[in-house]
Amino acid sequence: MKISGRNKLEATVKDITKGAVMAKVVMDYKGTELVAAITVDSVEDLKLAVGDKVTALIKATEMMIIK
Amino acid sequence: MKISGRNKLEATVKDITKGAVMAKVVMDYKGTELVAAITVDSVEDLKLAVGDKVTALIKATEMMIIK
Amino acid sequence: MKISGRNKLEATVKDITKGAVMAKVVMDYKGTELVAAITVDSVEDLKLAVGDKVTALIKATEMMIIK
Amino acid sequence: MKISGRNKLEATVKDITKGAVMAKVVMDYKGTELVAAITVDSVEDLKLAVGDKVTALIKATEMMIIK
Amino acid sequence: MKISGRNKLEATVKDITKGAVMAKVVMDYKGTELVAAITVDSVEDLKLAVGDKVTALIKATEMMIIK
Amino acid sequence: MKISGRNKLEATVKDITKGAVMAKVVMDYKGTELVAAITVDSVEDLKLAVGDKVTALIKATEMMIIK
Repeated sequence: MKISGRNKLEATVKDITKGAVMAKVVMDYKGTELVAAITVDSVEDLKLAVGDKVTALIKATEMMIIK
Repeated sequence: MKISGRNKLEATVKDITKGAVMAKVVMDYKGTELVAAITVDSVEDLKLAVGDKVTALIKATEMMIIK
Repeated sequence: MKISGRNKLEATVKDITKGAVMAKVVMDYKGTELVAAITVDSVEDLKLAVGDKVTALIKATEMMIIK
Repeated sequence: MKISGRNKLEATVKDITKGAVMAKVVMDYKGTELVAAITVDSVEDLKLAVGDKVTALIKATEMMIIK
Repeated sequence: MKISGRNKLEATVKDITKGAVMAKVVMDYKGTELVAAITVDSVEDLKLAVGDKVTALIKATEMMIIK
Repeated sequence: MKISGRNKLEATVKDITKGAVMAKVVMDYKGTELVAAITVDSVEDLKLAVGDKVTALIKATEMMIIK
């Protein structure tokens, strides 16, 4: 199975904060902090927990560049 | 100056491909390839070139998680 | 393997148009036409072809509602 | 009136969950569950309620493909 | 008909550039330039032309803030 | 420092609502209301407060057009 999304970063879950609808998942990727805002449903569906090895996925059209 | 976007990855531009409207910018981030699809106007406005040190910016709501 | 993206539509590829950077992939989902704009790199990486059975993936934060 | 967004799915609202800022709207589209995360303001502005006939709108650049 | 997207800017089309898949639409909004990257199909479906009065639509989750 | 995002609107913060994960920031831009849904972390990191002069940033690929 392959996904069209071009950016895949293998990260480790460091912290999860749940609201009523959205959840914040903080990850570590080679010393850089990544933050994803996904639905609480997704956190539960994936049984996400601190320490999990995951892949952060970002579509190429969603990435900006600062110079 | 600070930006609300939570994910900032310091990367190096490796390759740029320009179409009529969109451009593909391939970057290296700690050994992982990043790909951003931005407008050609942005490439020219930022004078992006291979070898440039840049920051890839991703909003937390644009990041998915695979487990 | 599970993906946090909440919306997954099993569709069939009907048409692919490639530009220099972006490609348009037209799909059929139960009689409704779906259109995805992804990179040409992704089309090639997934070896997408007309007739392929695929899954269209959309993050919940990317879906609007009209009433 | 026409909207540039290419993907329009006629769905029925099945469930609404409101948080402080974001709301989750679960819809049924031809037997498939759709989930949109929109602002609570939007839910109130559209007077969204279970049973409403709505259209889920997705921009082509926001759709990924899995194969 | 109402759309959940919170940001609606009434603008005037100033320029359109078409590629094979994507088109760039430059608009004027009260003296500020807006740029949308939409599919060529959308430009044709809406019969977009210079001088058109349009509304630029942006979902709240797609807007970042710089301070 | 330049950002690839094509749309930059100089606005004034009018209201901030915080949830557990996401925050709603209402701004005024030349008499039009703008609404951004960003993380609470971003609101705190930028020390956003009512009356602040900010710039709303939107990537060209995130803007739709209604005609």
